[in-house]
Amino acid sequence: MPVDPSVACVVGVDYGTLSGRAVVVRVSDGAELGSAVHDYRHAVLTEALPDGTPLGHDWALQVPSDYVDVLKTAVPAALTAAGVDPAHVIGVGTDFTACTMVPTRADGTPLCELDEWASRPHAYVKLWKHHAAQAQADRINELAAKRGESWLPRYGGLISSEWEFAKGLQLLEEDPQAYAATERWVEAADWIVWQLTGSYVRNACTAGYKGIRQEGHYPTPEFLAELNPRFRDFVAEKLEQPIGQLGDSAGTLTAEAASWTGLPEGIAVAVGNVDAHVTSAAAKALEPGQLVAIMGTSTCHVMNGDEVREVPGMCGVVDGGIVAGLWGYEAGQSGVGDIFGHYVANLGEAYTHESLTAQAARQKPGQHGLLALDWHNGNRSVLVDHELSGLLIGETLATRPADVYRALIEATAFGTRKIVETFNEAGVPVREFIAAGGLLKNELLMQIYADVLNMPLSVIGSDQGPALGSAIHAAAAAGAYPSVREAAAAMGRVSAGAYRPDPEAAAIYDELYAEYSVLHDYFGRGDNRVMRKLRTVQRRVTGATAGSRPDGAA
Amino acid sequence: MPVDPSVACVVGVDYGTLSGRAVVVRVSDGAELGSAVHDYRHAVLTEALPDGTPLGHDWALQVPSDYVDVLKTAVPAALTAAGVDPAHVIGVGTDFTACTMVPTRADGTPLCELDEWASRPHAYVKLWKHHAAQAQADRINELAAKRGESWLPRYGGLISSEWEFAKGLQLLEEDPQAYAATERWVEAADWIVWQLTGSYVRNACTAGYKGIRQEGHYPTPEFLAELNPRFRDFVAEKLEQPIGQLGDSAGTLTAEAASWTGLPEGIAVAVGNVDAHVTSAAAKALEPGQLVAIMGTSTCHVMNGDEVREVPGMCGVVDGGIVAGLWGYEAGQSGVGDIFGHYVANLGEAYTHESLTAQAARQKPGQHGLLALDWHNGNRSVLVDHELSGLLIGETLATRPADVYRALIEATAFGTRKIVETFNEAGVPVREFIAAGGLLKNELLMQIYADVLNMPLSVIGSDQGPALGSAIHAAAAAGAYPSVREAAAAMGRVSAGAYRPDPEAAAIYDELYAEYSVLHDYFGRGDNRVMRKLRTVQRRVTGATAGSRPDGAA
Repeated sequence: MPVDPSVACVVGVDYGTLSGRAVVVRVSDGAELGSAVHDYRHAVLTEALPDGTPLGHDWALQVPSDYVDVLKTAVPAALTAAGVDPAHVIGVGTDFTACTMVPTRADGTPLCELDEWASRPHAYVKLWKHHAAQAQADRINELAAKRGESWLPRYGGLISSEWEFAKGLQLLEEDPQAYAATERWVEAADWIVWQLTGSYVRNACTAGYKGIRQEGHYPTPEFLAELNPRFRDFVAEKLEQPIGQLGDSAGTLTAEAASWTGLPEGIAVAVGNVDAHVTSAAAKALEPGQLVAIMGTSTCHVMNGDEVREVPGMCGVVDGGIVAGLWGYEAGQSGVGDIFGHYVANLGEAYTHESLTAQAARQKPGQHGLLALDWHNGNRSVLVDHELSGLLIGETLATRPADVYRALIEATAFGTRKIVETFNEAGVPVREFIAAGGLLKNELLMQIYADVLNMPLSVIGSDQGPALGSAIHAAAAAGAYPSVREAAAAMGRVSAGAYRPDPEAAAIYDELYAEYSVLHDYFGRGDNRVMRKLRTVQRRVTGATAGSRPDGAA
Repeated sequence: MPVDPSVACVVGVDYGTLSGRAVVVRVSDGAELGSAVHDYRHAVLTEALPDGTPLGHDWALQVPSDYVDVLKTAVPAALTAAGVDPAHVIGVGTDFTACTMVPTRADGTPLCELDEWASRPHAYVKLWKHHAAQAQADRINELAAKRGESWLPRYGGLISSEWEFAKGLQLLEEDPQAYAATERWVEAADWIVWQLTGSYVRNACTAGYKGIRQEGHYPTPEFLAELNPRFRDFVAEKLEQPIGQLGDSAGTLTAEAASWTGLPEGIAVAVGNVDAHVTSAAAKALEPGQLVAIMGTSTCHVMNGDEVREVPGMCGVVDGGIVAGLWGYEAGQSGVGDIFGHYVANLGEAYTHESLTAQAARQKPGQHGLLALDWHNGNRSVLVDHELSGLLIGETLATRPADVYRALIEATAFGTRKIVETFNEAGVPVREFIAAGGLLKNELLMQIYADVLNMPLSVIGSDQGPALGSAIHAAAAAGAYPSVREAAAAMGRVSAGAYRPDPEAAAIYDELYAEYSVLHDYFGRGDNRVMRKLRTVQRRVTGATAGSRPDGAA
């Protein structure tokens, strides 16, 4: 018996770095009726496996059963909190961190769940922020550039150590037995859907952004063999899988998954997806030119375009990477909230984000006399250079911490403007800027962004955007709407033009941005390579490995 | 009856910003037998006169009777502490802050000591750091450049707002009555000697460095009239006075001054002098090529040369400016200890100079990956641009306060190396580097300077260098030695080559200094005028006066 549309609900599950959040959402209008969070029991393994086996520097692993525990605990708890009859739930959707990789047997069993592999680090999930495959990433980039691989420009000329190939090559070269036993090399985004439906469908988003799949093809066996002869058949043996489009149904809920979650067997399960990308749906921002910035410790920018263009320095452009039928563009700033957090942490207990923000808010633009470059964690877009570092100019004996704090906020806003302008200049115009993520709560920051961009800022209307976005995809997968775009229009929430630029402030920021741009190009495009030189010296004197961040930062 | 040379003593009195220090020194070997300090009762007047009359922004005044109080209290106390028979004292010498100016009547009576002038700010002593004459200094510099005045290059192309002409022009233009009543415009260094001897002798040092006296001439009446018609006769009416060479006797102690001090009437009183310059004698560093750096909140570099050369960006070159018969060169770094102090003050209570130094000392050169420019208080030498500001490059999310602290120390060392190299390139070679001042106690800093300069560092052997230097000048003035050079050789103290450069560290610093030099020229010589632009914007948005430091710093 079909569910009455007026009471129909969907469940969205957002898998973050430390916990999973389930939210029950009404299909008709996107109302969030109840939610619950489950913290992963093993959190992130960086020092040792659960049995004490030590891990190397820059490792970050997870335990896949923690993900299933979210289904068993947070989903029922969210249903209870919502006071919803489970029989009214017509679909479930998920989103995940990426690129997070699970080595499995052919049936999807994680290697680490087999007794004989339980003490082998390479049998566990490599979390997105596992950074121990930098040496492999460097070789991939070097070889791809040398061979002129056609896919390289689609990733701003740089494949990340976080992605599928670098992590896979590390697996092969550091634990060949585990590599051989890994029959499928699975994105966690797809693995969790596999647990829900009993079948493995690879989502178009991570296949494209993290799996280097372009125009239906992955890197060739010849390329892989040149990296390492034993890596030749990596794609055919472990990676290739039918692709599911975002918002399509990947299958239906199995009896076992129904028993875990308390949801009805047989309801639709959406194709796997990624946190940043589902947020676009939650913010009603799926039309070409609507750029969504998910602003937190770092910022991820996602935007659809009608056609494929080469935008210099983006993280990736993927057909159907955000929504089926459009080209999904992704860019990023590798340090945003992290930069503010690092600054405050170094100041000691006398200062907080709140006190510094309050003081900084009393200033006019330009009053502190400072200008900063926001490269403390490297530059993802548009320079694609993780060897870059921070810069602060203009300090005097009268400079106070709130001055620097404001200058750092402004620097990240200038970095965002650089990305927006790069899109505009490449023929993929940014027509609306929609903000999401944890930094929304800082109103000073939002106003500075509006002033620096000289654009109105829209803000997402939910504080659990990814989970809402997953629920929207569930509604589409269940057929309640013809597509994700229609589902988002009905269920998403945005406050359009919530922050308006102040013309006087915008004029001052135009002047400062011109100076930022000069410094950006001078230090970022090769005129002065002092940042790279400082790292080289640092590595030499500390004996750090070439290619790694000598300071241990991500 | 002449004093037995084996027991003969001299007294040196060092007039600082907040107190005066007297030290009793044995003539035969320079042993410091006793000392005492007297704090000025009125300290520095920045807000109001003693009667409550308010002062303007950037004002800094003193009360001349405080200087006499030092003679009345610190000198007798030092004699007591030394356990010396006053009859054994054969001379007294003094040094002073400069340029510190006293407006007096023809007999040396300070204007402010006359009842009718006691409530007029312009009747008081303008301390060296009185910075309210910047507008006058700007006009002096502009006109001198326009007219191509021959003396301008001898001051690095810039006359300071702290010096005699800027302060005098401010007096004229802001209080013409006080200007008219000012019959002599006297350096405090000379005024205190006038109080001791009863006669006014102008010392060669401040006349040259602060009074623009070159080759026996001051700026012409034509130049002064073009600044302001009423300023035409400033030199002839208020400034010109017989010149005394440093270390010569300016006269003998009057009965009144003998009664103040407890010293014998009729003993020799040395010509007035300046704190930094007498320190050269205390450090036995009067030969050409011996550069003395007095390192404190800022650093002053003084060195003798055989001949006059134009060294770009120095503070001044004066015939007999340090010792009679040689050309005295002076350069400076406008922020050194102030920069470290400002950094620590902003960090809050969790950090101290000691804790940061201890952590920084565990690092190798280049380990922190940072590079800084030491221009937080502008750049005195060799760029002579007070609109410049600080820069820190290379910060990452792993950077810690001790890293920045070390980078700031290194930046000031690079700034010193720039001065040393500029002297070398101008044909005034630096043969020995002798450090003095409060920063001596930081051994890490001293070693970094040795490594950056790649030179052995000698250090002065006294922690009251200026007072010892004044005592040495007293001994010369009393005829105990044929000249200051001989007196310094017998009485000065230095630990030669106390810090030796580490070749490995020096090699790394060579690399980093090359990068510093690129940034120095890029931001300091006009390629990128962003620092100036930031100040311009800052002034505009805050409504600050053009020419003033918009942040209120000195």
